[in-house]
Amino acid sequence: MEIGMVGLGRMGGAMAQRLLRAGHQVVAYDPRPEAVQALEAEGPSGAGSLAEMVGKLTAPRAVWVMAPVGEATESAIEEVAALLEPGDTVIDGGNSNYKDSMRRAAVLADRGIEFLDVGTSGGIWGLAEGYSLMVGGDAEVYARLEPIFRALAPGEDRGHGYVGRAGAGHYVKMVHNAVEYGLMEAYAEGFELLQAKGEFSLDLAQVAGIWRHGSVVRSWLLDLTAAALEESAGLEGLRSYVEDSGEGRWAVEESVELAVPAPVIALSLQARFRSRQEEPFAGRLLAAMRNQFGGHEVRRAE
Amino acid sequence: MEIGMVGLGRMGGAMAQRLLRAGHQVVAYDPRPEAVQALEAEGPSGAGSLAEMVGKLTAPRAVWVMAPVGEATESAIEEVAALLEPGDTVIDGGNSNYKDSMRRAAVLADRGIEFLDVGTSGGIWGLAEGYSLMVGGDAEVYARLEPIFRALAPGEDRGHGYVGRAGAGHYVKMVHNAVEYGLMEAYAEGFELLQAKGEFSLDLAQVAGIWRHGSVVRSWLLDLTAAALEESAGLEGLRSYVEDSGEGRWAVEESVELAVPAPVIALSLQARFRSRQEEPFAGRLLAAMRNQFGGHEVRRAE
Repeated sequence: MEIGMVGLGRMGGAMAQRLLRAGHQVVAYDPRPEAVQALEAEGPSGAGSLAEMVGKLTAPRAVWVMAPVGEATESAIEEVAALLEPGDTVIDGGNSNYKDSMRRAAVLADRGIEFLDVGTSGGIWGLAEGYSLMVGGDAEVYARLEPIFRALAPGEDRGHGYVGRAGAGHYVKMVHNAVEYGLMEAYAEGFELLQAKGEFSLDLAQVAGIWRHGSVVRSWLLDLTAAALEESAGLEGLRSYVEDSGEGRWAVEESVELAVPAPVIALSLQARFRSRQEEPFAGRLLAAMRNQFGGHEVRRAE
Repeated sequence: MEIGMVGLGRMGGAMAQRLLRAGHQVVAYDPRPEAVQALEAEGPSGAGSLAEMVGKLTAPRAVWVMAPVGEATESAIEEVAALLEPGDTVIDGGNSNYKDSMRRAAVLADRGIEFLDVGTSGGIWGLAEGYSLMVGGDAEVYARLEPIFRALAPGEDRGHGYVGRAGAGHYVKMVHNAVEYGLMEAYAEGFELLQAKGEFSLDLAQVAGIWRHGSVVRSWLLDLTAAALEESAGLEGLRSYVEDSGEGRWAVEESVELAVPAPVIALSLQARFRSRQEEPFAGRLLAAMRNQFGGHEVRRAE
């Protein structure tokens, strides 16, 4: 099958490779010419511009946009859609907010252009292991493009699926990432409880290794945790500074909109916010209050 | 290798079977004669009493105690130890508090009896898939009995290990279970966010199935979640009433003793407490307060 790929970053580049290896025809474009050239070594037809890419595709065209969330995705979809014809399809495989995807689907539908929102999980391991794909949009368009999803997924009939109308794919991906925040925080807290128990001098990499086989907490995230601890049991040289990239916040906002409790997910997000603060104001205020009412000692900044 | 097995419940019975299938000699005892008889069909040598079981074992003996946590384990270990000789070993494979295991190890050491505390994970799937085993105690005793652990684990060199001095095995298992609470709560909240989003009419079993392959949140618990949702997508007929069995509480207590934050683990435990309350007092008090200061409507019990 023929597909255009816009955005050859860490995810898009690897996905283009995985499609090529499965025998699909990929016409790739990236604003950075060196990214296109690097991929051409693997065989795809590169394009020097979006217009050239669209020109190389046969109608009905399908263009997969893999751009950073937000303005980059917005403008990439806009620019691609301006070059497409009715009956063509734009696929957003990035981490867009599902509300944006619903809006984009409606705007494109007015112009006769199809839109699929694809929640994509798998990270840098996806090239080798395949991606988990949650697809929203029109069911018939999904069915037509299924060979692409089959090739990207871990198996022909595994790890991909049509989950519902436009927006549903990114909604499911948003919740996926929110769950991921909670899982990661639970493991992290557990390993800190192991690490803090000095009297047992536990070997954290060994414990992670034991848990990987036969235990109730075995998981792919635990496999990665074990690998990280194997590299450096004390995690020396790393700072306790954890970014978030949107989906966790949206999921918490969604839990507020729906009035559905998600306390552990919300707290896992808050823990990331806290991790990025040095001497947070709330902590200093707590120290000040204790000093006020009880004369408790405070620690002064140096 | 020869081993005594005391307690042929859901865990102990399956472990005895797994050892037998691996070619070990098991002498089994359970206060319920029918449990011993049921297992004898599989080949082990049953015993009508602890004394008979100990009599059938060759010194240095090893007796695995698999009893419910607390008083049942305390008395089983006491009774077994009273029949053993210096050089023999008692193994506690249950979910004992690690502080009890440290105490028991010390008491038995005074009598020349070895003690291993084995955190055992795997649940009812362990018979087929093997158990994850975290072993505390004397390293030489562990080495001598390693064939037993190899046979119970999912593989010869996977899923079992000596983690440290007496108590360390049950400490690691306590943290394991605490992590499990957090993982479970994170999945549960995520699926509720999916279920609550009526406009997408998501098929939760399908989503769980997609996530099982290639996604960052894939795990054994997700496999089980998918199976449960496959059976009944709406979980009709189930009550939202979640028990806890000790380790989560101990882990939260430990986080307090060590002054190590474990907020998500603690909150996951609290969520279970809340799940068991009908019309909790705190909730009624919140409603009453809102009524007091703002005249907000309250709902009366019928």
